[in-house]
Amino acid sequence: MAVGSGALPELHPVAGVKIAIGSAGIKKPGRKDLVLFELAEGSTTAAVFTQNRFCAAPVQVAREHLKSGSPRYLLINTGNANAGTGQRGMQAARRSCEAVAELTGCKASEVLPFSTGVIGETLPLAKIEAALPTLPASLNEGLWLDAAHGIMTTDTRPKAWSAKVEGTPYTVTGISKGAGMIKPNMATMLGFAATDAPVSADVLQSLLSDIAERSFNRITVDGDTSTNDACVLVATGKAGGELIDSSDAPHYQALQAALLELFTVLAQAIVRDGEGATKFVAVKVEGGANRAECLKAAFTVAESPLVKTALFASDPNWGRILAALGRAGIDDLDVEKVTVSINGVVVAEAGGLAESYTEAAGQAAMAPEELTICIYLDRGDASETVWTTDFSHDYVTINASYRS
Amino acid sequence: MAVGSGALPELHPVAGVKIAIGSAGIKKPGRKDLVLFELAEGSTTAAVFTQNRFCAAPVQVAREHLKSGSPRYLLINTGNANAGTGQRGMQAARRSCEAVAELTGCKASEVLPFSTGVIGETLPLAKIEAALPTLPASLNEGLWLDAAHGIMTTDTRPKAWSAKVEGTPYTVTGISKGAGMIKPNMATMLGFAATDAPVSADVLQSLLSDIAERSFNRITVDGDTSTNDACVLVATGKAGGELIDSSDAPHYQALQAALLELFTVLAQAIVRDGEGATKFVAVKVEGGANRAECLKAAFTVAESPLVKTALFASDPNWGRILAALGRAGIDDLDVEKVTVSINGVVVAEAGGLAESYTEAAGQAAMAPEELTICIYLDRGDASETVWTTDFSHDYVTINASYRS
Repeated sequence: MAVGSGALPELHPVAGVKIAIGSAGIKKPGRKDLVLFELAEGSTTAAVFTQNRFCAAPVQVAREHLKSGSPRYLLINTGNANAGTGQRGMQAARRSCEAVAELTGCKASEVLPFSTGVIGETLPLAKIEAALPTLPASLNEGLWLDAAHGIMTTDTRPKAWSAKVEGTPYTVTGISKGAGMIKPNMATMLGFAATDAPVSADVLQSLLSDIAERSFNRITVDGDTSTNDACVLVATGKAGGELIDSSDAPHYQALQAALLELFTVLAQAIVRDGEGATKFVAVKVEGGANRAECLKAAFTVAESPLVKTALFASDPNWGRILAALGRAGIDDLDVEKVTVSINGVVVAEAGGLAESYTEAAGQAAMAPEELTICIYLDRGDASETVWTTDFSHDYVTINASYRS
Repeated sequence: MAVGSGALPELHPVAGVKIAIGSAGIKKPGRKDLVLFELAEGSTTAAVFTQNRFCAAPVQVAREHLKSGSPRYLLINTGNANAGTGQRGMQAARRSCEAVAELTGCKASEVLPFSTGVIGETLPLAKIEAALPTLPASLNEGLWLDAAHGIMTTDTRPKAWSAKVEGTPYTVTGISKGAGMIKPNMATMLGFAATDAPVSADVLQSLLSDIAERSFNRITVDGDTSTNDACVLVATGKAGGELIDSSDAPHYQALQAALLELFTVLAQAIVRDGEGATKFVAVKVEGGANRAECLKAAFTVAESPLVKTALFASDPNWGRILAALGRAGIDDLDVEKVTVSINGVVVAEAGGLAESYTEAAGQAAMAPEELTICIYLDRGDASETVWTTDFSHDYVTINASYRS
């Protein structure tokens, strides 16, 4: 199951970014499970990674390599997360970078490795090394959709977005994947995006950190932060023009807006394809004293198993929303002041059922696949929005049978 | 579904506590849904209530009444939580106390009201008032099992425990209920226990607070703290003997131990009957720097949807346990030092699969209905244990069809 059509726009190539797809047979024979990105010399690359203390070997190696200079290649495999694999996992991640370096003539430290799939199984390095040699010759700018397919695990469909940045010569294109173990903390597993704009490394990293915080870090499927989350943004500069090296530079605002839209679409695409999802839900908390408490409230409601099963049942169960809100850790919350609406229908006010509420209106509000739950706290001017899914039988089925 | 036989021991009456059961037809006609406790004059009563900011009208009224003196009656209804019902709910809770006072000759402030069931629907006061008059005449010391039945909602079986306190003339007996919206914070909906020991009000309250913290506050079914949690401990003093007014008093230690066992059994009974439960799981975190971080780790693992679905599948998925641990908020956690065992089989060590692990041993360890997941952090001497259940299809079915 997944919410919405999942139709993708035209994916514009980004000058300076080439892609190749391979099949290493990591989990299943014949499946496209390897993706190689080549980044033109002179590109700048920014990345954010999972804050999970138990982070995968490739995340550790990618962090290390990023420090030593600008990457030329990104190597991504699915079917195996290379997490919880100890020193052997670290060696495998390093060795896969060396293999790319040997084939392409770059340094191993100019390759960033990414893995997604089963935790705790040894990365089948020999299979990857056997599949790699065919890739460099097939590198091509037009393979973003293939790459989106190539990084899927329990995803039911590819996730991608692309746009020409208005009023500028620039393009932005990106892909993402993920369906379960989704509550990114600094980034999500996996997002890759590129622009042909020329952007300095500092500005690119601060753009990415800010935008990831407002997009990937605002989604949750099951509250389980992955061990492998990683999000990468590349600026090749191939479109030319003045270097964007500060927020006052020409086109900075337009590029920022386009990247925010790109990342928001990619992050929401992960929620729409959340494991077992039948609903796409925005939980909007307004009127908070500060953004931190709005976020706490929004995530607590979005992750409550009782709220999520009510969403699955299309039940306008505002009592469960208020109960979740009541345990969100806002010590001096006055529930009598809280108003809750679902798709515009006020369901609760003054700590109880809204006077104007009718069961028919509530049922009608809950019926659509896409919902907005709006919670007004009446404590200040801060607001935050988090996107989530419901909790269905298919979530249990998928996770009782798939060993992540 | 539920875990274990659910067989109950003999429930000893507690001198000074009488019980009556009634049928008000609150949710379904004919169901036993009213329980009245009468406490002998001179009894002391301690109580702890939910810390959810969105707390039910009866919780607010019970707190108020407790302040003004020692209660003589406890009135409990199921089928309606009287939560999220605003001023009308407060009036209904107060009025139900007045009705008991009129029938029994006590003051309304000597009655504590308790409700459990659907949130957000008006309490059908007229039905309760109509059913109450038959109750006082049927008050009887031998009805603890009937009371355990009378307070059930989605529970599949009654929960009760009773013991003669060794080396003392005292008896302790108690009942509890609850299956979903279970992560008590200071107490759980609902626990009622009594002893015939003579205990001063101060000592009784501190005994209850301490014991509730170590029993009810260590269980979680779905992480959703209820709006109606309440736990009451009555000491009638009818067994006579010296007043227990300090922790140095004779019999204090024995009584404390008996009450801790009573509350632990009652709390665990709620987990064993958790909504859709097929497993009863102790998550034990040892070697922590302090108890707070052990608790954070234990609750994060116990509430992870991915860990819970793996438990449902009897899958020894240690990767999900480590992933949950990694996001538990222990900032300087060194995953390389963590050891995880399931029912004594070491599954993970040094951040990866244990050398000694075999899949056959892992599968065998996961097979039983009752499991202990032991997580050793190697950071200090603190430890904590939390009890929980798995996440099954039935949890989704129950909560997609029951409006709590």
